Amino acid sequence: MSASSPRPARPWPTPGLSFGGDYNPEQWPSEVWREDLDLMVEAGVNIVTLGVFSWATVERRPGEFDWAATDEIVGLLHERGIRIDMATPTAAPPPWLHALHPEILPRDRDLIPQFPGARLGWCPSSPVFRDHSLRVTRELAQRYAPHPAVAMWHVSNELGGGNGRCYCEVSAAAFRDWLRRRYASVDVLNHTWGTAFWGHIYSDFDEVNPPRGSEAQNPALVLDFDRFSSDELLGQLLAERDVIREADPDAIVTTNFMVGPAHDVVDYPRWAAEVDVVANDHYTLPTDPLTAQDIAFSGDRMRNLAPEKGPWLLMEHSTSHGTWHPVNRAKAPRELIRNSLGHIARGADGALFFQWRSSPSGAEQYFPGMVPHSGTDSKIWRETVELGQLLGRIGEIAGTTVPRARVALLFDDIAGWALTRGLKPRHGLDYGRIPRAWHRAFWERNIPVDVVGPWADLAGYEVVVVPTLLLVSDADAANIASVVDRGGCVLVTHLSGIVDENDRVRLGGFPGAFRELLGASSEEFFPLRDGETVLLDTGWLATEWTELMREDPAAEVVAHYAAGPLRGRPAVTRNPRNGGSAWYVSASIDRLGIDAVVARLIAENALRPILESPEVEAVRRSGDGRSYLFLLNHSDRDVEVPVGGRELVTGIAGAAVTVPAGEVRIVREGERTGTRES
Amino acid sequence: MSASSPRPARPWPTPGLSFGGDYNPEQWPSEVWREDLDLMVEAGVNIVTLGVFSWATVERRPGEFDWAATDEIVGLLHERGIRIDMATPTAAPPPWLHALHPEILPRDRDLIPQFPGARLGWCPSSPVFRDHSLRVTRELAQRYAPHPAVAMWHVSNELGGGNGRCYCEVSAAAFRDWLRRRYASVDVLNHTWGTAFWGHIYSDFDEVNPPRGSEAQNPALVLDFDRFSSDELLGQLLAERDVIREADPDAIVTTNFMVGPAHDVVDYPRWAAEVDVVANDHYTLPTDPLTAQDIAFSGDRMRNLAPEKGPWLLMEHSTSHGTWHPVNRAKAPRELIRNSLGHIARGADGALFFQWRSSPSGAEQYFPGMVPHSGTDSKIWRETVELGQLLGRIGEIAGTTVPRARVALLFDDIAGWALTRGLKPRHGLDYGRIPRAWHRAFWERNIPVDVVGPWADLAGYEVVVVPTLLLVSDADAANIASVVDRGGCVLVTHLSGIVDENDRVRLGGFPGAFRELLGASSEEFFPLRDGETVLLDTGWLATEWTELMREDPAAEVVAHYAAGPLRGRPAVTRNPRNGGSAWYVSASIDRLGIDAVVARLIAENALRPILESPEVEAVRRSGDGRSYLFLLNHSDRDVEVPVGGRELVTGIAGAAVTVPAGEVRIVREGERTGTRES
Amino acid sequence: MSASSPRPARPWPTPGLSFGGDYNPEQWPSEVWREDLDLMVEAGVNIVTLGVFSWATVERRPGEFDWAATDEIVGLLHERGIRIDMATPTAAPPPWLHALHPEILPRDRDLIPQFPGARLGWCPSSPVFRDHSLRVTRELAQRYAPHPAVAMWHVSNELGGGNGRCYCEVSAAAFRDWLRRRYASVDVLNHTWGTAFWGHIYSDFDEVNPPRGSEAQNPALVLDFDRFSSDELLGQLLAERDVIREADPDAIVTTNFMVGPAHDVVDYPRWAAEVDVVANDHYTLPTDPLTAQDIAFSGDRMRNLAPEKGPWLLMEHSTSHGTWHPVNRAKAPRELIRNSLGHIARGADGALFFQWRSSPSGAEQYFPGMVPHSGTDSKIWRETVELGQLLGRIGEIAGTTVPRARVALLFDDIAGWALTRGLKPRHGLDYGRIPRAWHRAFWERNIPVDVVGPWADLAGYEVVVVPTLLLVSDADAANIASVVDRGGCVLVTHLSGIVDENDRVRLGGFPGAFRELLGASSEEFFPLRDGETVLLDTGWLATEWTELMREDPAAEVVAHYAAGPLRGRPAVTRNPRNGGSAWYVSASIDRLGIDAVVARLIAENALRPILESPEVEAVRRSGDGRSYLFLLNHSDRDVEVPVGGRELVTGIAGAAVTVPAGEVRIVREGERTGTRES
Repeated sequence: MSASSPRPARPWPTPGLSFGGDYNPEQWPSEVWREDLDLMVEAGVNIVTLGVFSWATVERRPGEFDWAATDEIVGLLHERGIRIDMATPTAAPPPWLHALHPEILPRDRDLIPQFPGARLGWCPSSPVFRDHSLRVTRELAQRYAPHPAVAMWHVSNELGGGNGRCYCEVSAAAFRDWLRRRYASVDVLNHTWGTAFWGHIYSDFDEVNPPRGSEAQNPALVLDFDRFSSDELLGQLLAERDVIREADPDAIVTTNFMVGPAHDVVDYPRWAAEVDVVANDHYTLPTDPLTAQDIAFSGDRMRNLAPEKGPWLLMEHSTSHGTWHPVNRAKAPRELIRNSLGHIARGADGALFFQWRSSPSGAEQYFPGMVPHSGTDSKIWRETVELGQLLGRIGEIAGTTVPRARVALLFDDIAGWALTRGLKPRHGLDYGRIPRAWHRAFWERNIPVDVVGPWADLAGYEVVVVPTLLLVSDADAANIASVVDRGGCVLVTHLSGIVDENDRVRLGGFPGAFRELLGASSEEFFPLRDGETVLLDTGWLATEWTELMREDPAAEVVAHYAAGPLRGRPAVTRNPRNGGSAWYVSASIDRLGIDAVVARLIAENALRPILESPEVEAVRRSGDGRSYLFLLNHSDRDVEVPVGGRELVTGIAGAAVTVPAGEVRIVREGERTGTRES
Repeated sequence: MSASSPRPARPWPTPGLSFGGDYNPEQWPSEVWREDLDLMVEAGVNIVTLGVFSWATVERRPGEFDWAATDEIVGLLHERGIRIDMATPTAAPPPWLHALHPEILPRDRDLIPQFPGARLGWCPSSPVFRDHSLRVTRELAQRYAPHPAVAMWHVSNELGGGNGRCYCEVSAAAFRDWLRRRYASVDVLNHTWGTAFWGHIYSDFDEVNPPRGSEAQNPALVLDFDRFSSDELLGQLLAERDVIREADPDAIVTTNFMVGPAHDVVDYPRWAAEVDVVANDHYTLPTDPLTAQDIAFSGDRMRNLAPEKGPWLLMEHSTSHGTWHPVNRAKAPRELIRNSLGHIARGADGALFFQWRSSPSGAEQYFPGMVPHSGTDSKIWRETVELGQLLGRIGEIAGTTVPRARVALLFDDIAGWALTRGLKPRHGLDYGRIPRAWHRAFWERNIPVDVVGPWADLAGYEVVVVPTLLLVSDADAANIASVVDRGGCVLVTHLSGIVDENDRVRLGGFPGAFRELLGASSEEFFPLRDGETVLLDTGWLATEWTELMREDPAAEVVAHYAAGPLRGRPAVTRNPRNGGSAWYVSASIDRLGIDAVVARLIAENALRPILESPEVEAVRRSGDGRSYLFLLNHSDRDVEVPVGGRELVTGIAGAAVTVPAGEVRIVREGERTGTRES
Repeated sequence: MSASSPRPARPWPTPGLSFGGDYNPEQWPSEVWREDLDLMVEAGVNIVTLGVFSWATVERRPGEFDWAATDEIVGLLHERGIRIDMATPTAAPPPWLHALHPEILPRDRDLIPQFPGARLGWCPSSPVFRDHSLRVTRELAQRYAPHPAVAMWHVSNELGGGNGRCYCEVSAAAFRDWLRRRYASVDVLNHTWGTAFWGHIYSDFDEVNPPRGSEAQNPALVLDFDRFSSDELLGQLLAERDVIREADPDAIVTTNFMVGPAHDVVDYPRWAAEVDVVANDHYTLPTDPLTAQDIAFSGDRMRNLAPEKGPWLLMEHSTSHGTWHPVNRAKAPRELIRNSLGHIARGADGALFFQWRSSPSGAEQYFPGMVPHSGTDSKIWRETVELGQLLGRIGEIAGTTVPRARVALLFDDIAGWALTRGLKPRHGLDYGRIPRAWHRAFWERNIPVDVVGPWADLAGYEVVVVPTLLLVSDADAANIASVVDRGGCVLVTHLSGIVDENDRVRLGGFPGAFRELLGASSEEFFPLRDGETVLLDTGWLATEWTELMREDPAAEVVAHYAAGPLRGRPAVTRNPRNGGSAWYVSASIDRLGIDAVVARLIAENALRPILESPEVEAVRRSGDGRSYLFLLNHSDRDVEVPVGGRELVTGIAGAAVTVPAGEVRIVREGERTGTRES
């Protein structure tokens, strides 16, 4: 295990760990505000995000600003010592702006507008919206930048959630300009995209359109439109950030990402470099059978997004069920606390919620807050208070980080876009599933994993897993191969390295980018129908995807197909090379298979778990000579763990700690045992 | 049981019971018309609805009216003594009107027009359509009002079926005017709707739009748009009615409602006060496992729609399968007769069909008529004739009514709209399902139930069931509570009383409107996934919905959750109060549970069945000292029922009556037995 | 069995059998072209289709033609003796044309354009597109008609695939003109369509619109719009053909049909008369459980499309999986060869593929070519070469035909349109399923079947199967009845003969067109739900569809319904008449039932199989005194077949031939055995 690194000297809005949530006092009469503040103090709230939906409140009519209520709230919060993450209100254009400028509404693939009434109802390329949004941002920034309570700035809200892709004429013109900058000449574009197919050769950039209508489009066009759309939204982020910095050059600026279990609608790795604090909104899926691993996977990505890999901030999560899914599962008792600490275990230096109080009205009226509809006599409020008070007690953890792992799992949103769109041999491929499946095998064994991009510096990693990374550039493929060349291990799954960065299939056998590295190749895809399985001679089952691999590869054959048209052909191979090894898994294999392969990777590469305990998830944070072991018991029985040190939840020190069913314990390691902390 | 009430002196179009159907002679050459009339006489038809689709026939070009064919048909019907329910043809604008004024087409949420070719192709707020439709209505009314054969007027057809919601600009402007009238000031609207959520505060009514596009809108906006849409259609009804009354102040005016197994697209309780005869179109669902109960439930609603609760009219039903469902189940032999009499048993004073003759052409070409495609040598025709002749023989029943029940089940279309739209913790909630489930338990035991609105006078009811009545006003909540306060019993299920009349969540614990009444409350919703079940300690199973109830309620706990995260918490409670009792059922419990609870309600409130017989449905109609017992045998075996009186189908009197499998018997009660009626 | 007929003296582009595929060299740099040609020669390619997607290449800007690359390719192909099927590039309008004339884009039912980026992005009625497309066609034809390598002309590509129905205003105007020509007076149209239903009587043709919006339209309107749409596309075909014939009056002109397992989007029987070679693109469905029968069924239709029933051409099929289905199953080893020879066995004189080389880019980037992404070291390439070389060796088969069968199965695209659209008693009826089910029973027994239209000359057929032929004209009904009158057998299934050619239901009992012939009739449809079954007293099961047949028919009752509401009623009848017999199957019966009925048809009509072997499909081609027996082994075991003659794949002659598992053998019959051909 690599040594823990000291906390980088980076900005953070609060002392200790941050705790709080979105605070939208405009939803309530002012007599509720003082009760809010009392409850916040009771719960240990030290920061709130203010103003996300306030545009229509502060600028009731064009150019008429009224800051009185905001001033009052800011003052009240400051009095209580609660810091403010001040949001620009640009996610919520006021109705008068849509009435004045309906042309700013984003339009879908069929050019039907996203009518007013939701969030982010604006085309990211609209100069009209840009002007209006920067005007309100400037007013806000200049007024509150000097205020001592304002500790951080929150640009807009979940940029791309609702306006991730706009197909309107303004977007089309901006897309053409973006293409002109990228390709200079239309002939280069034609060549790069392979427009000769179906005879779509352009004679001028002006002929290019967004991928409107059918999904059956040139995939390189679709991919570039995805990149363009991410860039346009980033443009809004940068413009607002710069307006804030005009008002306060030292402002800490963030925005809330939406890094979830699958690929994202925008390219956050590029965005991360532009913010001061990397923050995330994380909502679990009610259909996820393994929510705890979703949290771990997300955390393993989040802390690697920022170049410095310092602490990140959990900007939003939910105290219980959500409201956007067909069935919104509520959190079981203790799950709120366990989930929040799961994020903090993976490097978050704070856990905030959306929103402070449940609103009785509006589209999300059933979305639970920290103060739910049922009030303070509720499971949600009691667990919220317990969590907030605990975070206050364990503030010493702030600034420590999760040490760099020995295993990297490669993940790239852009590869995800390429995988999940267009006419693949199997449609509807899911990017999240296979990466999660391999991550799970390490997670269950408490082997730390970093989820990083294929462009990351892989020097420190001994095992690199490359799951369904369809798109990979030559440079990134070389980066991956270098792991083996210095004696490490690379495992590549099916549907990786198939296309280059322009979504052009690499020829000569699959996976084109890794064929030589793997000493093995496939010649044809044999996707399986839903419910169809193919047995391997190791007893593993393949579902969804198999491939006709070439016979007699240079690599060792670990498993063969044992049935069906591929019977007898290699299915999983391992290529020893330069002291390292390169695996190829040509099929979507089941849990049994993944566990068996990962067990061999662990053995061959001498990986060691943080803790051997199937029920308890163990994660370590460290820094500045301190070390903390988080123990999350996801089972329904109490578990004793032989770890010495002071346990911070109970305050008891000893040679072992009992983690009750459903609870979390945090051990400050390396301390004398047997005493109780005051 | 309350005493039967005399028939109110109200208008009715025929002597005895009405029998007939929609007659559209323009679909046939005139040589068929005389055969039609002979067959009508054979079947005992005494009324037909004429002219529903005749606009393009009588006004072939704008302003050019030709009534010759109508005159001839009216004359022929009059000769045979068949009365006419004269329809205004406004459900079927002629093609020339759409060609001249395409702007009258209703537009959907995405502003795509409902193109010509269906029915009701007009925006209810269109002044252009209003002018044209009133012009043809005036011509029709003035010409035929004096004709002695015209016994009733039928305004348009199934208003709202196709144009229930229109999102066009004309509708938008009318909606804004409606809002101005309702709220006077935009600040009141903002406050009522809670527009601060997502920052949608309006500065002017002109900024408000219909809820176009996504379903994720402010729910109060959506609900007001539903109310507005109902009002606009009602406006058309009133305008046409008034034109008819100009021609004949004594005209009996009706329109055909579409009261089905779930909530309706418009607010019929308000409409009912505006018509002289409350009429319904009822089509069974092919997927309904309990069609007979659907008919009973619909009838129990229909007769309570009109304030006087007099007879109602079954304006349309089908002789066999429909044509709009994925699979349109045909009626089994005898089902036509049994279903028609099921409606009459519940208070209908007539049973009419759509339509007289099956059309060989047109969109509904496979919809069966009274004379089906296969002609008179058919099951359908034979049963039609048998039914018509029977209705002629039992005309004495006309004018009697179903006595007021001791059990009321509360049902409200507007609450249904609120329940089924928007981002609920569980999406796609169905309003019909839970009310039907509780109604079934009484129906199977032959305990009469009135289905009434929560605003109804509940004075006479001893048991009031409140199933998934999400929305309830303070006044209606008090109305419901008063039942308990005078010693009665109220049973409230989950998802009742959650919001006020503006769809605003009531705070402090669920169900907010009834928490005090129930002596129990919930703090959090725990919806279940499809297929997921939770066991209760009574052995009942919950599906779809459970709730985290607070511990130790004032009420007695009837059942606890026995598994899952809610284990040990109350699930069903009963609160004795003021000599009455108030039940809360926090979960969607299974048939076993509902039957057990209803059995206890029956016992505690000393409810008595009309007849104890699991196979035979028994309903009583009475009035003016007469009493008739309808016995519907839904089973496949003959059943003897110990009821004395003369049976009107067979004409035999006795101390008991045998109801053959699948048949209906009607006993005139309290008559000397042993003789045969001549 | 009828005698084999000599090959008609008709045009054909190659000597022997044709082999090759679509060649799109513009997708590749010119250095690849010479490798292409070497590989083509290796594989025995003798013809390629050139230029399908070349418009944007040859006319880079409006009016600027550049033929240099085409000239070079044509020259290279000619050098190697490879013939050219020269395609007009009109399926692929260049981006500049869409930029210049966006109004040519086809519009869907909601008037949303099919945005640029796919194929066939043009309204078939657009005069703008017609002008541009004929201009490029004229340039191409005049330049290359004289070239000796150009052996055939290929008009556009898969006409209708993407622009089969256009609802735009230009189409609407053209539709009205088409209706004026068909009906002359709007009163005739009103009467024919039965527009009185729903009151849609037109006062002028100008009021008629395409069936936009909802599917619930007048079915006669929908059907005429289908016919119109087919005619408009045919208009494009004829216009391009005539331009080619201007350049070369002797040009062989074809276009590629899309005759698949169900009905087609256009009316190919009418089109077939207008081309010199009838050609088809055939892609198997991944969900088809019986691909081999799909190929047989398609071939049995294809060879009967052209009036002369000469050879037809398989213009496109795939070397492995496709790319348009949710899961695109790959072809198992040997399936490529077996499928190709399956087409040739049924009368194809050539087997071509789409496309020569897999493209690394474009919407169909994963569609496999003859040279797949993985290159020549692949199963696909090896089998391609093996097939091409074999076709070269068996060229003597060219010109022979499949003899006329004794069994005809009636199939009509227009009847299919009528069956599958509109509000049927059961929605979503599939036209392909029932015809395939009856064809299967003959195919499995190696009894030849011709799939022909109901207007075909049925004189030579002894058994005629009429499966779900909903629409039939009086003349065609008489044509079918004549089979029985001359001693033959007709079998009619449910949903046949229900409507006339204007989609008007025939009255008096179902099936109206055949009631008298069958001596039996139904009075009411009883469709079944998905998963519902009804037992017959023969042990067969009905699914999807049953009917209430009238009791005591003149016909013999072969099977009764044994359960449900139809219990005891006839289900399958057989009417002896004039020495022949007429069967009615009123339900969708299962495989057991179909096999039993077909076994009786075989016995009663003394039909003889080509070969009695359940594993091996046997088809004969003959002509000019030669006879060839194709033996396709679809099983996984080797089968010995006692057929004497020389086997052309192995070259061995003998008294029997062993067909290895998965392989095809072709026996030249009636030759001395025991020697090996040199």
